[in-house]
Amino acid sequence: MARKDGREDDQLREIKLTRGYQDWPAGSVLVEFGKTRVLCAASVSEGVPRWRKGSGLGWVTAEYAMLPSATNTRGDRESVKGRIGGRTHEISRLIGRSLRACIDLAAIGENTIQLDCDVIQADGGTRTAAITGAYVALADAVTYLGAKGLLKDPQPLSCSVAAVSVGVVGGRVRLDLPYEEDVRAEVDMNVVATDAGTLIEVQGTGEGATFARSTLDRMLDIALAGCAEITRLQNAALAQPYPGDLPAVKS
Amino acid sequence: MARKDGREDDQLREIKLTRGYQDWPAGSVLVEFGKTRVLCAASVSEGVPRWRKGSGLGWVTAEYAMLPSATNTRGDRESVKGRIGGRTHEISRLIGRSLRACIDLAAIGENTIQLDCDVIQADGGTRTAAITGAYVALADAVTYLGAKGLLKDPQPLSCSVAAVSVGVVGGRVRLDLPYEEDVRAEVDMNVVATDAGTLIEVQGTGEGATFARSTLDRMLDIALAGCAEITRLQNAALAQPYPGDLPAVKS
Amino acid sequence: MARKDGREDDQLREIKLTRGYQDWPAGSVLVEFGKTRVLCAASVSEGVPRWRKGSGLGWVTAEYAMLPSATNTRGDRESVKGRIGGRTHEISRLIGRSLRACIDLAAIGENTIQLDCDVIQADGGTRTAAITGAYVALADAVTYLGAKGLLKDPQPLSCSVAAVSVGVVGGRVRLDLPYEEDVRAEVDMNVVATDAGTLIEVQGTGEGATFARSTLDRMLDIALAGCAEITRLQNAALAQPYPGDLPAVKS
Amino acid sequence: MARKDGREDDQLREIKLTRGYQDWPAGSVLVEFGKTRVLCAASVSEGVPRWRKGSGLGWVTAEYAMLPSATNTRGDRESVKGRIGGRTHEISRLIGRSLRACIDLAAIGENTIQLDCDVIQADGGTRTAAITGAYVALADAVTYLGAKGLLKDPQPLSCSVAAVSVGVVGGRVRLDLPYEEDVRAEVDMNVVATDAGTLIEVQGTGEGATFARSTLDRMLDIALAGCAEITRLQNAALAQPYPGDLPAVKS
Amino acid sequence: MARKDGREDDQLREIKLTRGYQDWPAGSVLVEFGKTRVLCAASVSEGVPRWRKGSGLGWVTAEYAMLPSATNTRGDRESVKGRIGGRTHEISRLIGRSLRACIDLAAIGENTIQLDCDVIQADGGTRTAAITGAYVALADAVTYLGAKGLLKDPQPLSCSVAAVSVGVVGGRVRLDLPYEEDVRAEVDMNVVATDAGTLIEVQGTGEGATFARSTLDRMLDIALAGCAEITRLQNAALAQPYPGDLPAVKS
Amino acid sequence: MARKDGREDDQLREIKLTRGYQDWPAGSVLVEFGKTRVLCAASVSEGVPRWRKGSGLGWVTAEYAMLPSATNTRGDRESVKGRIGGRTHEISRLIGRSLRACIDLAAIGENTIQLDCDVIQADGGTRTAAITGAYVALADAVTYLGAKGLLKDPQPLSCSVAAVSVGVVGGRVRLDLPYEEDVRAEVDMNVVATDAGTLIEVQGTGEGATFARSTLDRMLDIALAGCAEITRLQNAALAQPYPGDLPAVKS
Repeated sequence: MARKDGREDDQLREIKLTRGYQDWPAGSVLVEFGKTRVLCAASVSEGVPRWRKGSGLGWVTAEYAMLPSATNTRGDRESVKGRIGGRTHEISRLIGRSLRACIDLAAIGENTIQLDCDVIQADGGTRTAAITGAYVALADAVTYLGAKGLLKDPQPLSCSVAAVSVGVVGGRVRLDLPYEEDVRAEVDMNVVATDAGTLIEVQGTGEGATFARSTLDRMLDIALAGCAEITRLQNAALAQPYPGDLPAVKS
Repeated sequence: MARKDGREDDQLREIKLTRGYQDWPAGSVLVEFGKTRVLCAASVSEGVPRWRKGSGLGWVTAEYAMLPSATNTRGDRESVKGRIGGRTHEISRLIGRSLRACIDLAAIGENTIQLDCDVIQADGGTRTAAITGAYVALADAVTYLGAKGLLKDPQPLSCSVAAVSVGVVGGRVRLDLPYEEDVRAEVDMNVVATDAGTLIEVQGTGEGATFARSTLDRMLDIALAGCAEITRLQNAALAQPYPGDLPAVKS
Repeated sequence: MARKDGREDDQLREIKLTRGYQDWPAGSVLVEFGKTRVLCAASVSEGVPRWRKGSGLGWVTAEYAMLPSATNTRGDRESVKGRIGGRTHEISRLIGRSLRACIDLAAIGENTIQLDCDVIQADGGTRTAAITGAYVALADAVTYLGAKGLLKDPQPLSCSVAAVSVGVVGGRVRLDLPYEEDVRAEVDMNVVATDAGTLIEVQGTGEGATFARSTLDRMLDIALAGCAEITRLQNAALAQPYPGDLPAVKS
Repeated sequence: MARKDGREDDQLREIKLTRGYQDWPAGSVLVEFGKTRVLCAASVSEGVPRWRKGSGLGWVTAEYAMLPSATNTRGDRESVKGRIGGRTHEISRLIGRSLRACIDLAAIGENTIQLDCDVIQADGGTRTAAITGAYVALADAVTYLGAKGLLKDPQPLSCSVAAVSVGVVGGRVRLDLPYEEDVRAEVDMNVVATDAGTLIEVQGTGEGATFARSTLDRMLDIALAGCAEITRLQNAALAQPYPGDLPAVKS
Repeated sequence: MARKDGREDDQLREIKLTRGYQDWPAGSVLVEFGKTRVLCAASVSEGVPRWRKGSGLGWVTAEYAMLPSATNTRGDRESVKGRIGGRTHEISRLIGRSLRACIDLAAIGENTIQLDCDVIQADGGTRTAAITGAYVALADAVTYLGAKGLLKDPQPLSCSVAAVSVGVVGGRVRLDLPYEEDVRAEVDMNVVATDAGTLIEVQGTGEGATFARSTLDRMLDIALAGCAEITRLQNAALAQPYPGDLPAVKS
Repeated sequence: MARKDGREDDQLREIKLTRGYQDWPAGSVLVEFGKTRVLCAASVSEGVPRWRKGSGLGWVTAEYAMLPSATNTRGDRESVKGRIGGRTHEISRLIGRSLRACIDLAAIGENTIQLDCDVIQADGGTRTAAITGAYVALADAVTYLGAKGLLKDPQPLSCSVAAVSVGVVGGRVRLDLPYEEDVRAEVDMNVVATDAGTLIEVQGTGEGATFARSTLDRMLDIALAGCAEITRLQNAALAQPYPGDLPAVKS
């Protein structure tokens, strides 16, 4: 009945956040939840998409993808298939929505922050790892925008964002499922929360099974505790100075 | 502070279920939640997709789409754009997943039930209306399969499935949002539940806002009550005889 | 030798025209030729496509599609295939061309009327039913444009447009073929005509057979008589007041 | 009022048929109607598409395309756009349908003849020129199949096929319109006919105008006379021996 | 050991250049290397692509394609597949790059020359034949631009461009490989050179084999000699007057 | 005149090869040429593509792609555009061709090795870095196949493969160009060579300039010396044991 990796049911895998992983984007973070590794880049560009011009508001959007070699069995490349699959679309939309919840788009002016979350290695929980890493990359991109003098308000981030998966496996509610637990979970849930403990997104799904409301409550309990721990790790990572050279501050 | 259409906060719109709306599919149901109208067809075909052959299991899948003229402002046709959008993918997957939760796929043998949910008119809550109508169409398709003698087990449906939207509008938790409430909702949630009151899917999203756990609890309370009422309407509709001629029972 | 549905060779099926079928488009007509049902919507938007800007002329265009559940055997969705088939293209172009023949595009100013013809149920003759219904939806859209004060000339419609199919089945020339006659027709023809009895489009095809010119003449005779009858039904439908609220007339 | 190229209203342009234009296909014909030049190739392959296997019937299909440099103003390449346009689809279908009308598909066994009609230079009437040339290429392909001993019946062709355009220009009914007449025609019609004078396809369209039935009759008169003349030219071309080496007859 | 067509190892096939093959483009050349036939058209349009506007520079680009009937076994049409293959992309880019090497893009002002190289018949060496023919078509297009008074400098062409294939077949270095040699070549190389004997592009590939540097040297020797001979043929063709009417010179 | 990074003209950047970068593929190598970083994975699957079945031969193929965040200015994702660009196609084909030159496809039986080269960060020379890394990943995949007992011959690799770029910048021939040199190079060449010093591929291109044959010779000299040095680094990396667990040897 114990977990294969020896964790307690409500325990996270080891989480690492490496800022400055790439040299060009304004924010670039490699996030690791155990063997799951996602490269989260935040690229800044001046201007916004056409439909938003003249609004005075900025834009934050996200794209999620998996390297073909990231999964146990090689996956086909979506660029070769010529279409993005439903799962990819769904996760890209979730990441963008989650991160927009923490930022004041008026404060960044008519600038765009593009978040790219590319899964280098998948072992369960790639979408929640992506949100967790993307928040740190976004924070770096905001610092970069500030250094360039492009912020209308010096604090565009109203909260921090962390995410984790939780599920029911063999009747037990467990936190942060690796692939081998995920494939046999009866219920699968993703929770995105803020540092204030409020919710941004809750998605719970019975996988060929239904679940009682009391199970939902128990899953939320341990997911929120997990998010609080992840928030501490994000803060610790962001307490270090900006990795790389910032543009000279405009005076 | 009252709702434009005069409803209580926890009151559903008028819901109608018209079985036998089309002549050819095994199940065809027009579902109406107020002005929202979705045509849900369940088409039966012998055989299953290639990846499932020889498993002894059937397959249930769904596709959701909107007529261009269904929305207030005409929407572009996805067939003309040559791509299905992320929202369409996401909803199609949700409908398929939700309905597969109530059916024993071994009991229908290697047969496929294809659910098509086409929105004739949209006024909020199209995805939950689609799930609600698709369940009734699915029940008719199962009756049809039985009449053709194709069921391995006479009762493949383990529960019934109903769905409804709920949200926070102007600080008030409200059930079954029409479009004009939906666009200004701070929180938007879709709940899919069974006649036993258990959950199949819960998707709650802060729209540029976050929400407290207590708000989530309140939304679940009124959504589950709404689903119970919808279940009663589904049962009443299905208490009528199968619309149209059934194939002669094989003896 | 008699027709299955008991009609005379030169007799139409029962035809119904329901205006105001949807709430949002300027014109929305459900047209029924027996079991064939097509929803024809006319959506008005200000402005014209880029290639037409500054011409002073409006634009009328059409898109035809079939619900997957409309046919006896479910058809694949063109949005999922990622391509519009040749037949769909051909019919969309025919509908647009036919309706443009009856309208003075200068009279509607630089505005666009988009006709969407979605087949809810198919039983032969969907393209001619679509043209017949689209004319009534177009007339409503013109009334709407007039109420908004957007017409350059109060009477943009120079004629009315009706269409019907005709064919040779088992050696007999027959009007308005249902599916079961259509599939075994030796010759298949679609005729689009005006209320003045002149022709807009004639498309006759030998299906694995050739046909004599005298047969073509006989087909035209009964098709034109059919169109005259359809014109009377269109006029009767349009004699009723505009369904729904018109925008207040600009003064 | 006279035609720019000096022709009578009912006179064809100079027509040339060059067999054996390419070395590899079983039939390859360059057809010229004045400046309009279309390369029609008939490629033979053993086997038929999957949906036709085991039927004992062969298959004839066609694809039409235009070189980008064929038109007065360069046209975009459909392969680069990634989609085939509606007009291309429509013409490809017309050519295939027209040629299938003259061949007994049982007689060629389960073999496929693919007709490729590529417009080298366009000056009006490319689709009718394509049909005219494709018939000659098809006849050569049938000879080739016979030489390979693949015919079930030595005479699969039941008739010959010729096509021509006709229209109303400045109020006058004219045969075989070049581009400069085509663009200003009030009515445009394509007629496909057999050597017996029967019809395979008639497509008449009012271009922003409607036309009287008596005009239709006059157009048919001169189109059928034109087709008879084209049939004579096809016969003369086919009276020459097969261009190139035939495979040795199986004994 | 001798070549099937009787040529010496370092001998070219018979090469023909027919200018004015089509009537509409500013340059249109049919180039033949033995049975390989490529139609090279140069279409002139005023203006440049968006990304180049305001630069004062013109643009030269190329597209290469093969007719389906050009090859021994019919090839599928890329427009039907909805994608351009890797080989087509690669060759189009090579042709464009090679021709841009010989022209001063400032001298042609903000005008575009589009080169279309369509293979009518393929028998090896289609890409080098295309470059060879495209140069002659380009030269005609430049003459046309001059006649229209659109050149900023009367001599935009700094050199002429010729290309040829060379390879190692059965251990022997051979020039201008036809298809039957090409498929069994151990090394395959394409050389693009100027009339000054300098190089524009060298692409040498071992086909399942590697090759010594001395072999590379020998291939270059005979390829450069071949290009010199092709240059003479291009000059001879261009010594004839412009085929067709030039626009009247602006004064 | 000196290089920005202080290197001699014929000096390579620092090159690192990290084996076992990912856990799932049979071979996974991160290759770095200075700031250029490419992740090369070799995934093994039993069976070969349909067109190769029954041949007794294996298959090696490659796909190259760039992360959107890899470049100085973010690049659009090809999966989102729905098409693979010409450059991507060209490089994928080059990598596959180059690696197939070193392997005996009969020796690996009917198994496939898929090489995925994903650029994590781009600073010039990504295609040659990809080939260099892919060779090491391929060698690991061959070891893995051997451990699984799937090799027909214990030594399928006939040589090793290394690649490097070389160019002319400001008139000087230079090795291994970073981005800032690459964009202003007059000539750009990629050389793929074996450990025996023989050539697999040579691609030299004048960028808006032509080059003398003597320049080509000089570029080959320093490129071949560079490849020899890279070969030494590959051998050193492969001298270490296989990273990760090999499957137990079948006996």
